[in-house]
Amino acid sequence: MSKSDIQIAREAKMKPINEILGKINVPDEPSAFSPMGRHIAKINLEYLDSLKDKQNGKLILVTAITPTPAGEGKTTTSVGLNDGLNKIGKNSIVCLREPSLGPSFGMKGGAAGGGYAQVVPMEQINLHFTGDFHAITSAHNLLSALIDNHIYWGNKLNIDVRRVVWRRVMDMNDRSLRSININLGGVANGFPREDGFDITVASEIMAIFCLANDLEDLEKRIGNITVAYTRDRKPIFAKDLNAHGPMTVLLKEAIRPNVTQTLENNPAIIHGGPFANIAHGCNSVIATKAGLKLADYVVTEAGFGADLGAEKFLDIKCRKSNLKPECVVIVATIRALKMHGGVAKDDLKNENVEALKKRFSKFRETY
Amino acid sequence: MSKSDIQIAREAKMKPINEILGKINVPDEPSAFSPMGRHIAKINLEYLDSLKDKQNGKLILVTAITPTPAGEGKTTTSVGLNDGLNKIGKNSIVCLREPSLGPSFGMKGGAAGGGYAQVVPMEQINLHFTGDFHAITSAHNLLSALIDNHIYWGNKLNIDVRRVVWRRVMDMNDRSLRSININLGGVANGFPREDGFDITVASEIMAIFCLANDLEDLEKRIGNITVAYTRDRKPIFAKDLNAHGPMTVLLKEAIRPNVTQTLENNPAIIHGGPFANIAHGCNSVIATKAGLKLADYVVTEAGFGADLGAEKFLDIKCRKSNLKPECVVIVATIRALKMHGGVAKDDLKNENVEALKKRFSKFRETY
Amino acid sequence: MSKSDIQIAREAKMKPINEILGKINVPDEPSAFSPMGRHIAKINLEYLDSLKDKQNGKLILVTAITPTPAGEGKTTTSVGLNDGLNKIGKNSIVCLREPSLGPSFGMKGGAAGGGYAQVVPMEQINLHFTGDFHAITSAHNLLSALIDNHIYWGNKLNIDVRRVVWRRVMDMNDRSLRSININLGGVANGFPREDGFDITVASEIMAIFCLANDLEDLEKRIGNITVAYTRDRKPIFAKDLNAHGPMTVLLKEAIRPNVTQTLENNPAIIHGGPFANIAHGCNSVIATKAGLKLADYVVTEAGFGADLGAEKFLDIKCRKSNLKPECVVIVATIRALKMHGGVAKDDLKNENVEALKKRFSKFRETY
Amino acid sequence: MSKSDIQIAREAKMKPINEILGKINVPDEPSAFSPMGRHIAKINLEYLDSLKDKQNGKLILVTAITPTPAGEGKTTTSVGLNDGLNKIGKNSIVCLREPSLGPSFGMKGGAAGGGYAQVVPMEQINLHFTGDFHAITSAHNLLSALIDNHIYWGNKLNIDVRRVVWRRVMDMNDRSLRSININLGGVANGFPREDGFDITVASEIMAIFCLANDLEDLEKRIGNITVAYTRDRKPIFAKDLNAHGPMTVLLKEAIRPNVTQTLENNPAIIHGGPFANIAHGCNSVIATKAGLKLADYVVTEAGFGADLGAEKFLDIKCRKSNLKPECVVIVATIRALKMHGGVAKDDLKNENVEALKKRFSKFRETY
Repeated sequence: MSKSDIQIAREAKMKPINEILGKINVPDEPSAFSPMGRHIAKINLEYLDSLKDKQNGKLILVTAITPTPAGEGKTTTSVGLNDGLNKIGKNSIVCLREPSLGPSFGMKGGAAGGGYAQVVPMEQINLHFTGDFHAITSAHNLLSALIDNHIYWGNKLNIDVRRVVWRRVMDMNDRSLRSININLGGVANGFPREDGFDITVASEIMAIFCLANDLEDLEKRIGNITVAYTRDRKPIFAKDLNAHGPMTVLLKEAIRPNVTQTLENNPAIIHGGPFANIAHGCNSVIATKAGLKLADYVVTEAGFGADLGAEKFLDIKCRKSNLKPECVVIVATIRALKMHGGVAKDDLKNENVEALKKRFSKFRETY
Repeated sequence: MSKSDIQIAREAKMKPINEILGKINVPDEPSAFSPMGRHIAKINLEYLDSLKDKQNGKLILVTAITPTPAGEGKTTTSVGLNDGLNKIGKNSIVCLREPSLGPSFGMKGGAAGGGYAQVVPMEQINLHFTGDFHAITSAHNLLSALIDNHIYWGNKLNIDVRRVVWRRVMDMNDRSLRSININLGGVANGFPREDGFDITVASEIMAIFCLANDLEDLEKRIGNITVAYTRDRKPIFAKDLNAHGPMTVLLKEAIRPNVTQTLENNPAIIHGGPFANIAHGCNSVIATKAGLKLADYVVTEAGFGADLGAEKFLDIKCRKSNLKPECVVIVATIRALKMHGGVAKDDLKNENVEALKKRFSKFRETY
Repeated sequence: MSKSDIQIAREAKMKPINEILGKINVPDEPSAFSPMGRHIAKINLEYLDSLKDKQNGKLILVTAITPTPAGEGKTTTSVGLNDGLNKIGKNSIVCLREPSLGPSFGMKGGAAGGGYAQVVPMEQINLHFTGDFHAITSAHNLLSALIDNHIYWGNKLNIDVRRVVWRRVMDMNDRSLRSININLGGVANGFPREDGFDITVASEIMAIFCLANDLEDLEKRIGNITVAYTRDRKPIFAKDLNAHGPMTVLLKEAIRPNVTQTLENNPAIIHGGPFANIAHGCNSVIATKAGLKLADYVVTEAGFGADLGAEKFLDIKCRKSNLKPECVVIVATIRALKMHGGVAKDDLKNENVEALKKRFSKFRETY
Repeated sequence: MSKSDIQIAREAKMKPINEILGKINVPDEPSAFSPMGRHIAKINLEYLDSLKDKQNGKLILVTAITPTPAGEGKTTTSVGLNDGLNKIGKNSIVCLREPSLGPSFGMKGGAAGGGYAQVVPMEQINLHFTGDFHAITSAHNLLSALIDNHIYWGNKLNIDVRRVVWRRVMDMNDRSLRSININLGGVANGFPREDGFDITVASEIMAIFCLANDLEDLEKRIGNITVAYTRDRKPIFAKDLNAHGPMTVLLKEAIRPNVTQTLENNPAIIHGGPFANIAHGCNSVIATKAGLKLADYVVTEAGFGADLGAEKFLDIKCRKSNLKPECVVIVATIRALKMHGGVAKDDLKNENVEALKKRFSKFRETY
């Protein structure tokens, strides 16, 4: 019987992260990166700035035909392609999205490749990783708290409580919070209104975070978020609440790209993770640009099928950031071709407790 | 004019965390600790296990008379006492609680000592630190999601939706979420019920986390949490939902004690942070015990005044963990004596946007 | 200046209701009718039964082309036609719907004809009248209370709180109650769920009430109301809750047709009033059948335009009750023809406080 | 076996209401009263005005020691006393409260005396009677609708939605509506807030209605109702919303006292019914004063025991209306003396479906 992804991941012979970074010439200095454990690092933005005159590497986009419910293998192909390029002596790096904790506990599972084409340490990556999503969650909900706090303390901006469009987020698959009523319980708790939680990867902060060129740009984009309207439909922005400063403070570590390694000990950047259905579905601009300075080849992927993910990659991310892929790889599995041809149908139901327990049984062995 | 706490903190000459750990003989090995940036580390529980036959140091408890609203100076005294002991050649460590992100954005501010008796890096400690509270938040809310998910998918355990006693948490001062209605919006979103969010430091997970002796003990304690009752008042436990396993997985990094340094480069463990009003208000048992193995003297503090904090420390934490302080320091400021004598009254109002902005102005200068 | 409707109505020389009833040979006996004030009476169902072998009169339906927002004049035409028939010596009666209290306070106003073709006493008819709508409101909400009471006391029928389809009603234009959450406030108040109030004329009880042939038939129809579904979508009926008996008790006076008079002192039956948009929009079957026994000609109307109202009258009311109109009058005003031809557009906004005050100014003069 | 109350009531030989009124010299004229069916009448206020120079009869208050849960027999005693006074040739009338429809469907049952000391027609009295409570319900909820409507259309009065103190009412025992959230469902439905329904007899309108001297006084009292507060706690009154006029229009029939008869065909006024626990618990001032003009003796009762009901009668109703009882009767049953002495304990549980069905079985036989 073949080994499971997690078995393979656990048998990985990981190298210290400073060795991995050494492969792409990042020095083991506090000015260049911070270790986050022994196998993960956050690169300093100042260090990346110091490379700005270096020539960019070549950008390779991995996309796919319309996938099956189980996915199509873009991440696996990306990781494998990166390992292959390194194997034949090319200086290559792979840039991927961070997985969301929510679906990790659901049916969908983690997102770090599969088989012998994985990024590691798999469990950390799939769980809290370096806390980027927690920081985005905090920044997002701080804005929510500031909105309700503003209304509570007199509502100078005349926010219409029925027209607050900024919902809250949590990095959890939790249908209970989709539609809620808040500010209940009397005068001291605020002005009742209808609200709801989205999953963190659907946060507008996540999308902005991944399109920002640097921290200043991020702060400006955050300030321009429309959070509500007045009774006469005048938009209210995050900057009207002076929320952009504190929110950016909460994101100043998260904005630094995370470096990990593949099973073959080649460098992998994993940073940012907006959902492709409601946002543009690819890793951060900062990460991709970092890759282009650090390596000769950067393999990256865009969420969902080519008609959605590659389009958004090309039309949104590339245009906004002045990126240009030199090559596009389209993944097409036999399984997908069969399924779309009507032969087989995957039977994937919504997350449930049984699935959850099964999924966790693998993690639990580790401690 | 004298310097502010943050000015002093920023001028700190921090030493690399491996040097700090070297002072208490912790080797710079992957088996002993993981760096979390250059100035923070998480100690491995396996390493601590290897010290179990070493004799314990002496435990010094710092408590106080009934404080003023601005606090009484227990943390400052603890840090100063630790620095003083080191100054006179004693091998001493200080064990403190992690500050909550919520009040950091409120009027209360951070909690890392003051003046020249601080722990650093102050900003990281006050913001996300090593993600322990985020992990506790995730674990807590995963249990919430599992409860509602169980009810949604048939409710075999006959949970009475009116008697779910497990609320949700967020590490935020957000009055809007104190009292909410959830599961609204129709059949697909679940069975409506009343709920609410507490601040993460008030989570029962936080209390359990700080009383646990190890990960197995933590898992067992989590399993025994009462989450709800049936119509006929039979208690439902977290283990009935098989929630304790996944929740513990989410906490397996958080359980490792965090080491930082004081302004005088002496080691400081900062780990766990239950509120003293609703829990026992002191750092984790694992951290205190780690300190006793790593140093000859361990200075620690207990929240609020002696009548509440020291009582809980002695009656709960010490009894449950077989700890015994050799010495108790009671802090008594002139300000508190005056105030309780009726002379002066601090005028502390609830958090508001102005305070928030002011608080953040200091953080913002940094990037 | 011409007189307003209410001026004309107040100047009416009404005759005692026993005289009016005498015109159609109803004896002034307790067995035949009960006076409700001096100008309104409720006919006994037993008396109507005693006429069952009498030959029916001829049924005349008044309908209209698509109306303007202000209505088209069906009621005015019906009342006028009835008065005209009586004028030329025919024994005729008019059968109309009772107006809803809700819109009476809104922009739409009452519904008792206009000019010199009105039914009187206009104010009583437009306000509480004989309490029929209050009785329907009570019966409707008793069923609601029984549903929630059943759930509260153990829910033997396994009603799914998300699938209760029986909303509450009030005879009021009140948007605040359209969408509400109920059973809040803790264990003692019940199981939270989403609910809402409709206006009483939209109650299914109103529709059933107007299609019933007698009290036994009404009880049976009420028993067959679907009030909710179980989790596995089995319907729950009112009779499963034993609600039909008590509800019918509450309706036993309301089921008796009300007799009033026109400005020319001809008899008018006003009974029942389902909305035409969500039900069949005509007065009760019992009233129409009473008219056919009491007079040689019965003029009646059906709500909205012919495509909606007359269709429903013919397809639903006539088929269910074995009625057959001998003649159909179609009202077509110049105003409607102009408006539908694009010439003029009435500018009717939603009800508001000013309109309410204006409307009430006329009522207030009376006491 | 002795007959039940309802058996006795149904066997009553009622006399036409004009004969009953004749006993106290009320002429059978439209100017004096309106028949509401054959056995109930509403007296005209103008007729009562015409008696204002007539000398008042003597007022007899019936109160009781602390009752048992099943009541103590005040109504029975009052009715019996009235019948006795008439028997010995005195011109006497009894003044009672109208029963609430809500508890009629609950365990408590109706309130029209018992045994051979009852007022009839019992079923009408216990169900909708003459619609007074429906009118009070409508007036009350109209004010509620006007409050939310005012907020919806711009809220010129700056009503704080958290400080609306005017709840809604329904004449129903319905715990589901005690605590609700309203104005949900989006912009078109209003500004969400917390609300709730009380039972109609607990309405402030009911209390005001029973203390008013005439319709003008009622309107003025209604105008002075505090319905809400602004953010800075300025009270908002019903008159600020111009609500008092329309509300009074809805009450202009209800304000007229209802006359029925006892089993011995003596006149009984039944009018108004505020709860004694939250209001003053006796019939309307208008009714008591009408009695004093119409008869030589007026027997009336006050809710609950003497310490609550008689106190409120004397301290509130009498003072406000310049009434003075000539005699007070205190009811004391052996059962109550035993119970308060600790011998027996009635076992009364909350209303439930079984009780409801049982209660209704008696009503149902009638049609």
